[in-house]
Amino acid sequence: MEKRVRTVGSLNAASFSVYLDDVVLANGEPARRIRIDHPEASAVIPLTRGGEAVMVRQYRYALGMETLEIPAGKVDPGEDAEACARRELLEETGYRAGELVRLYTYTPAIGYSNERIHIFAAPDVDPQSEKTDEREISSVEIIPLEALRTMVRKGEILDGKTLIGLAVAGLLEGACYSEGFRSGG
Amino acid sequence: MEKRVRTVGSLNAASFSVYLDDVVLANGEPARRIRIDHPEASAVIPLTRGGEAVMVRQYRYALGMETLEIPAGKVDPGEDAEACARRELLEETGYRAGELVRLYTYTPAIGYSNERIHIFAAPDVDPQSEKTDEREISSVEIIPLEALRTMVRKGEILDGKTLIGLAVAGLLEGACYSEGFRSGG
Repeated sequence: MEKRVRTVGSLNAASFSVYLDDVVLANGEPARRIRIDHPEASAVIPLTRGGEAVMVRQYRYALGMETLEIPAGKVDPGEDAEACARRELLEETGYRAGELVRLYTYTPAIGYSNERIHIFAAPDVDPQSEKTDEREISSVEIIPLEALRTMVRKGEILDGKTLIGLAVAGLLEGACYSEGFRSGG
Repeated sequence: MEKRVRTVGSLNAASFSVYLDDVVLANGEPARRIRIDHPEASAVIPLTRGGEAVMVRQYRYALGMETLEIPAGKVDPGEDAEACARRELLEETGYRAGELVRLYTYTPAIGYSNERIHIFAAPDVDPQSEKTDEREISSVEIIPLEALRTMVRKGEILDGKTLIGLAVAGLLEGACYSEGFRSGG
């Protein structure tokens, strides 16, 4: 248990805030902690009926580069996580989800953020609109699963929620390092 | 591409900083971005010779709860990622790594942080010391892999780096949702 003594600073972005807190650790020692108060988010693995993944390429400012990711975004006030996944998929890719399967909820940056990401699978998406969010998305890319597994094998997928989504959907099997690792275990 | 116009605020923790920047988006519109400048980090999946995982339970202030995770921490200035993984394993659990296998590097919070986490596997760790870091660690827990897979199946492992570590080590297979999902894909 760590208890907040006082907040000594804060920064406010459009949809979340960052605090710098003085705290007392469980052993009584003082410490200082960054704490991001972040809304929940949803991410979705969209698969076409042909078994390809619908991915987005976008510029990530904090990282200073473009990355390839599954569609995702923050849950709006009053929205539920599944509705958010549907909305983000449509806004970012122009594809519409049929059934959504809830796969997992996890915390991406447990050391400094309370963000939780809900991961869904959309196993039968269809193209609906040519329009995508040009403020955020550089391109929409339709990628066969085997090509995606090859990218993971080469370490080319940097984004954590994309890796976890593929893993909990059972789509990473064979892309990982089980043989070399298990031989020692 | 998004270009920084100016930094309008910042917060400084012991080992990383958070900035609030005014930026210009690729389409010319203005926006405001949180940007965390974070050192690299290492995480390690430590397995005993009996095939159990050595995990740590720790209080996470931003989340307000205890979580079960693989050992991990920030790379010190001048340290390399593998040395960091060895050091954090020993400090947090009292176990010493034999061979380390580098598995993957990913970005946990791509929307607001430049943090990169290097994931290693340590397939033959041995107990070395009873002393662990009481400032950070509540308990060290030795967990059979099948029990860990059951926890993932139940959604009980919240920590992203732990999920990705297990996935890229090939240790999650059978704990995921492949059948229900693939039937639609």
